[in-house]
Amino acid sequence: MPGAGRCTPTWKARGASRPSTWKGSPTSSTEVPRTPLCNEFRIIATYAQTELGHGTYLQGLETEATYDADTQEFVMHSPTLTATKWWPGDLGRSATHALVLAQLICSGARQGMHAFIVPIRSLQDHTLLPGVTAGDIGPKMDFEYTDNGFLQLDHVRIPRENMLSRFAQVLPDGTYIKLGTAQSNYLSMVVVRVSLLLDEINPLLEKACIIAIRYSVIRRQSRLRPSDPEAKVLDYQTQQHKLFPQLATAYAFHFMGTSLQEFFEESYSAILDRDFSLLPELHALSSGLKAMVSEFCTQGAELCRRACGGHGYSKLSGLPSLVSRVTASCTYEGENTVLYLQVARFLVKSYLQAQASPGSTSKTSLPQSVAYLTAPDLAKCPARRAADFLHPELYTRAWAHVAVRLIKDSAHHLQTRLQSGADEHEAWNQTTVIHLQAAKAHCYYITVKGFAEALQKLDHEPAIQQALQRLCDLFALHGILSTAGDFLQDGFLSGAQVDMVRSAYLDLLFLIRKDAISLTDAFDFTDQCLNSALGCYDGNVYERLFYWAQKSPTNTQGNPAYQKYLRPLLQSWRSKL
Amino acid sequence: MPGAGRCTPTWKARGASRPSTWKGSPTSSTEVPRTPLCNEFRIIATYAQTELGHGTYLQGLETEATYDADTQEFVMHSPTLTATKWWPGDLGRSATHALVLAQLICSGARQGMHAFIVPIRSLQDHTLLPGVTAGDIGPKMDFEYTDNGFLQLDHVRIPRENMLSRFAQVLPDGTYIKLGTAQSNYLSMVVVRVSLLLDEINPLLEKACIIAIRYSVIRRQSRLRPSDPEAKVLDYQTQQHKLFPQLATAYAFHFMGTSLQEFFEESYSAILDRDFSLLPELHALSSGLKAMVSEFCTQGAELCRRACGGHGYSKLSGLPSLVSRVTASCTYEGENTVLYLQVARFLVKSYLQAQASPGSTSKTSLPQSVAYLTAPDLAKCPARRAADFLHPELYTRAWAHVAVRLIKDSAHHLQTRLQSGADEHEAWNQTTVIHLQAAKAHCYYITVKGFAEALQKLDHEPAIQQALQRLCDLFALHGILSTAGDFLQDGFLSGAQVDMVRSAYLDLLFLIRKDAISLTDAFDFTDQCLNSALGCYDGNVYERLFYWAQKSPTNTQGNPAYQKYLRPLLQSWRSKL
Repeated sequence: MPGAGRCTPTWKARGASRPSTWKGSPTSSTEVPRTPLCNEFRIIATYAQTELGHGTYLQGLETEATYDADTQEFVMHSPTLTATKWWPGDLGRSATHALVLAQLICSGARQGMHAFIVPIRSLQDHTLLPGVTAGDIGPKMDFEYTDNGFLQLDHVRIPRENMLSRFAQVLPDGTYIKLGTAQSNYLSMVVVRVSLLLDEINPLLEKACIIAIRYSVIRRQSRLRPSDPEAKVLDYQTQQHKLFPQLATAYAFHFMGTSLQEFFEESYSAILDRDFSLLPELHALSSGLKAMVSEFCTQGAELCRRACGGHGYSKLSGLPSLVSRVTASCTYEGENTVLYLQVARFLVKSYLQAQASPGSTSKTSLPQSVAYLTAPDLAKCPARRAADFLHPELYTRAWAHVAVRLIKDSAHHLQTRLQSGADEHEAWNQTTVIHLQAAKAHCYYITVKGFAEALQKLDHEPAIQQALQRLCDLFALHGILSTAGDFLQDGFLSGAQVDMVRSAYLDLLFLIRKDAISLTDAFDFTDQCLNSALGCYDGNVYERLFYWAQKSPTNTQGNPAYQKYLRPLLQSWRSKL
Repeated sequence: MPGAGRCTPTWKARGASRPSTWKGSPTSSTEVPRTPLCNEFRIIATYAQTELGHGTYLQGLETEATYDADTQEFVMHSPTLTATKWWPGDLGRSATHALVLAQLICSGARQGMHAFIVPIRSLQDHTLLPGVTAGDIGPKMDFEYTDNGFLQLDHVRIPRENMLSRFAQVLPDGTYIKLGTAQSNYLSMVVVRVSLLLDEINPLLEKACIIAIRYSVIRRQSRLRPSDPEAKVLDYQTQQHKLFPQLATAYAFHFMGTSLQEFFEESYSAILDRDFSLLPELHALSSGLKAMVSEFCTQGAELCRRACGGHGYSKLSGLPSLVSRVTASCTYEGENTVLYLQVARFLVKSYLQAQASPGSTSKTSLPQSVAYLTAPDLAKCPARRAADFLHPELYTRAWAHVAVRLIKDSAHHLQTRLQSGADEHEAWNQTTVIHLQAAKAHCYYITVKGFAEALQKLDHEPAIQQALQRLCDLFALHGILSTAGDFLQDGFLSGAQVDMVRSAYLDLLFLIRKDAISLTDAFDFTDQCLNSALGCYDGNVYERLFYWAQKSPTNTQGNPAYQKYLRPLLQSWRSKL
């Protein structure tokens, strides 16, 4: 996918063990430098995982790395058309080296996916090395100018040391030694997902919110009263209903990202010491939150774009490119449905674990993020009026209740299928739509809880705390209204309580209106960074749109189409008179 | 918006009265042809409504047409920057004439929006005529090559006959005569909306469905069972859950479009005879269905795109351009939220009308599409098992129940606000989120009902009827599950019944799987028309992707960036060693 597999920082970020030397093999006929890799500025590297026929399902990748003990080399090979590496960033016309994910075949046995450093272009003249075919994969949505490439390897030989070997090694005689778990193969994806959430995806939603909210206090449309001037569109309830939940979401993910980062650092440092006990939870958390953040940010940025009407369709608004970039995140680094289902497996497993040994020991042994599966639960929400729904403890418990119910429900459906004779895989496939729902509710719960807890720590800044608390409330209640059926289904909320939630929600929109501009300014993006005629700080929207439009080539250089196409057309019609 | 205001066919389609002659005014200094307009091939015309500062709210348009009785001319003028016409198709570099929507000022009185034919470019050399400033508005999402332009008029004079005057006339002495209703101003938008639904928007969803579903029987990913080969992704329940509701929606809109067209023809022919009685209903129906169709088709096409994973992001899939085009339809020809709220006003009015005179007379006088507001209703759904939800009568009544409840609820909230002292406009604004919900439920009900009724007429084709009936069931049930809270809130459905709906829905996915390819083939688009490497009829997805990618310019013409940028970079790093 666009932007995936970017060069130098990735070596480190992906947790790959860095080989201490490069070694040109006499039979590899490549020009691998013989100097230490620590001077890494001599190469442009790409991360080559995805293939033409295989994406998220790592085990399905077809590229092979067959170890030849006689020469102590790996033979890198693309056995089919669908094994062609496809999408890696910088691969099509720039990279000199690729970190290729391939099936390791060692002493005749397949050992699963491992990563190999493969030189692909000459450092002298940038031509493709023998056995290497590579090029551009064609135009992409709004990423025309990004280099995304393909790569085919025809028995390309690389030295044994070019396999990354922190968690698995091949000895010179071909003996394979595993140092990590099966899941350590996925560690690099976990690392990338965590950094994506914090550094890439959510900022795109933040920018979209700034642009749309700033524009909405400049744009006027229709009259709230016949005697008034036209109203700012942000004063319309429907516009607030579109934009403020997105603003609340951007803040929610900001705080959630911070706590995920803390958990990541804790578990990652354990993993580097070969303690893999936190990896399943880290994998589930990072998968689920990547899926949720990319899904919500994409939906939110597009809502912001549409909330700007026709001008949101103009690239001068800056919004189309934000939307295209954030949309890509739903697919890269793990397709979202697949990721949610990995969370669901973790949830079902945790639930069954809690069921199997319901004593106090099991409770403490459940991973922290799913400990709520065994916490005391309420059968009915105690709220009696709309204002009760503005208490974080109340709505956090409501979300916990729904998530637990859906997880139980999905586990129950799975077991029912198994009991009725379906095998494990069939039963899973027949219940995945239900599992999806459970995984999404779990992720929402985690985010609401994290947001509420983070705000408790802000009590030394009461004004800021109050403004953010409204966003936290809005985030929780908007989620309840969007999935009201899940809260009503078992009677946890009554119909009257859902009305209260709606009433509290609508009142919040009105209150947040006053802080809306400050809350977007607080993201602190410069005009240059926003690159938007609609979102500029000074609010000169129309002047800037008009001025920027004047730079359009047919405005400055004339219209070559007239002489070539229009004139003959108009004249030929005329001649028929 | 892109594609808006396209030339010749529009004259007729917009229902505008066509003036019988063109007349150059001695003071207009324009080169208007003096021959009859029926030879319309000598001009390129655009429809110029939207302004830089004003879109959907017609009354807010600022462009002025001031009648000068001395010369029998209109003086066309853009009084402000925000009055600049912005977006009209073909305006920026092609059109010779614009149909300009402007505020008519006549004998000092403002008479609202009317349409005027304004020559803007010389027919001799295509230069802009005196007083006219026009040009390109800059790049748009995936419409870079479409001509969308701006137009400023500086006291441009046009003859009196250039005002379109089927529904309003200005006599030579400046007397203004109204022949239609206030709503006849909107007639041209109604006409365009109806044709958009049928000819433009839904076919984009149909194409996206074909591409995604065909690709999903070629693409394989992961194993359903360890011993099996990788499974076709269409055999995954989650993939069916993404795609089949879109397929069902495309069929639903197909049948809905046909019945809307019939109603349109009936009411339009009455309107041309100056019988405006059906116009409010036609306006509400076309507004609501335009909003619903564009919203659902946009969401559906994007879902189809994402269901193709990374390859859906490649333009070679054909999907990005489909998505960009369908997305535009959410904004052009009336922004969707505004349109839904116009439906909501019609619904509240109809409901209050029914309340005011609950006798049999009122029932018959309600417009046909809202007659269900007074039909007998059930308090609880009688379904006892999942299969009961496969009866069109049952789910149509369920949708009617929910729509009626939400309409009542929205009217009730409006009245409560009014009773608590809010003025009419404030009360409306404070309840719009609730009105939106009601309008959407109404549109869904109309579509479910239309789909079910259309299929009843297919009983001479039982096999086709059965295959389509499953889609109709799926459309209705998917809608119920997506808004389950609305059905649970008043206890119309119980939690157990929602489980039955889900069970019936999941079973339908499995059944539709068998017909999926035939149901997409039936749309009958050629490969050329789909222009997609993923959606080709022969299924040679990977071969075509690879082959098409080879045509990328940097693959065929080399990479100029190497000599210019990469080489100096790589070499400079090297020189530091």
